[in-house]
Amino acid sequence: MTNIESRLATLGLILPPAFAPPPGMHLPFVHVRQIGNRAVIAGHGPQSPEGPLAKPLGKVGAELTLEQGYFAARLTALSMLGSLKRALGELDRISHWVRIFGMVNSAPGFVQQPAIINGFSDLILELWGPEAGAHARSAVGMAELPFGMPVEIEGEVQIAD
Amino acid sequence: MTNIESRLATLGLILPPAFAPPPGMHLPFVHVRQIGNRAVIAGHGPQSPEGPLAKPLGKVGAELTLEQGYFAARLTALSMLGSLKRALGELDRISHWVRIFGMVNSAPGFVQQPAIINGFSDLILELWGPEAGAHARSAVGMAELPFGMPVEIEGEVQIAD
Amino acid sequence: MTNIESRLATLGLILPPAFAPPPGMHLPFVHVRQIGNRAVIAGHGPQSPEGPLAKPLGKVGAELTLEQGYFAARLTALSMLGSLKRALGELDRISHWVRIFGMVNSAPGFVQQPAIINGFSDLILELWGPEAGAHARSAVGMAELPFGMPVEIEGEVQIAD
Repeated sequence: MTNIESRLATLGLILPPAFAPPPGMHLPFVHVRQIGNRAVIAGHGPQSPEGPLAKPLGKVGAELTLEQGYFAARLTALSMLGSLKRALGELDRISHWVRIFGMVNSAPGFVQQPAIINGFSDLILELWGPEAGAHARSAVGMAELPFGMPVEIEGEVQIAD
Repeated sequence: MTNIESRLATLGLILPPAFAPPPGMHLPFVHVRQIGNRAVIAGHGPQSPEGPLAKPLGKVGAELTLEQGYFAARLTALSMLGSLKRALGELDRISHWVRIFGMVNSAPGFVQQPAIINGFSDLILELWGPEAGAHARSAVGMAELPFGMPVEIEGEVQIAD
Repeated sequence: MTNIESRLATLGLILPPAFAPPPGMHLPFVHVRQIGNRAVIAGHGPQSPEGPLAKPLGKVGAELTLEQGYFAARLTALSMLGSLKRALGELDRISHWVRIFGMVNSAPGFVQQPAIINGFSDLILELWGPEAGAHARSAVGMAELPFGMPVEIEGEVQIAD
């Protein structure tokens, strides 16, 4: 077992299978686009370990509490790691996290987006440590997200030679 | 005629001229920023073949139906291809699509952003095919977009050596 | 004194110190992530010269006028330049601006996001000139931003060898 995956196992965390869109919806894009040493990552949302979108759906500050939003961002990290594992073969190939763009489906007046996206950043730093795991980040409030997802996150990582 | 442009002609599609901002408005940025093999693309909106913003303006789910939103995203692709042609000389220089960030001006409760941005992705894949045309993508709901545009899309492509 | 910093001094502009988050909030990310010649920049907001978020907070088109929004975007540029100076040592190491993603906390119906983000672009172009300062840009309307900031901007620059 590789380094990152043994840490995931120690934490009792499971990477979900690829997200299957609702019947009749096609999603004509790739979850990870590798160009040289860059892996550019599509927007991901919170998946349950079995694959479907995790509940509850809705806006943070209305249908979701801050704690539920934090947990949704953590599940979004696991969804993204699942995509990266399938695209790269081994998560240990990621030498540097680069950029995270964290989008929070925000009820009017909800302005604690950073506290939500911390659910993503905290897990990445726990797994990769403060050097490889460091990333530039934005955490912002969206009017709506697909399917009513509470969080969507895209980003980029660097792959070792 | 080059490869991509002959496909555009076969489909009866026309690239619009550069977008002229409303009188009194200055837009102090470039539509395409080339850095080595990367071409980073500014946010584009739906242009009519003659150049002005395409009608209708407004929010998808209110002023625009899903079908009108899809078509606006397709027109946004043509606007972006016009900018890329002017910046690169030939669209055939694009070896890989990399990243698409698709923003939908969304009425409250509208959560089908992916179905709108498919109007962009479907055309790119039709023109470049599944390998060169593959791209990482997000499709998200904005509170407002400039001038009331229904769609704005930015992205990045890779240029052949 | 270096080139860019002497221009800042001539304009009477001061780079603020690093932003200190409110007590009890941790922000587990870096303001600038350097990968080779790329410097990827986290989301920044308007800081006062002393360090705290600049007032007024709120939405452009409601709590802030267009002129106040433009000035907030200019302060956001100074916040970002402060981070770049601390990360890179010298602002003169920036050889090319690449990408700017400008987010405006927008009151319903406010659609002049480009006129706001011009407060950022105009300063960058004044400091770096039309070649090095050129950048691809989006300027879009967000539902909410952290702490009620009127503007948040992320981006990327290229570093000279």
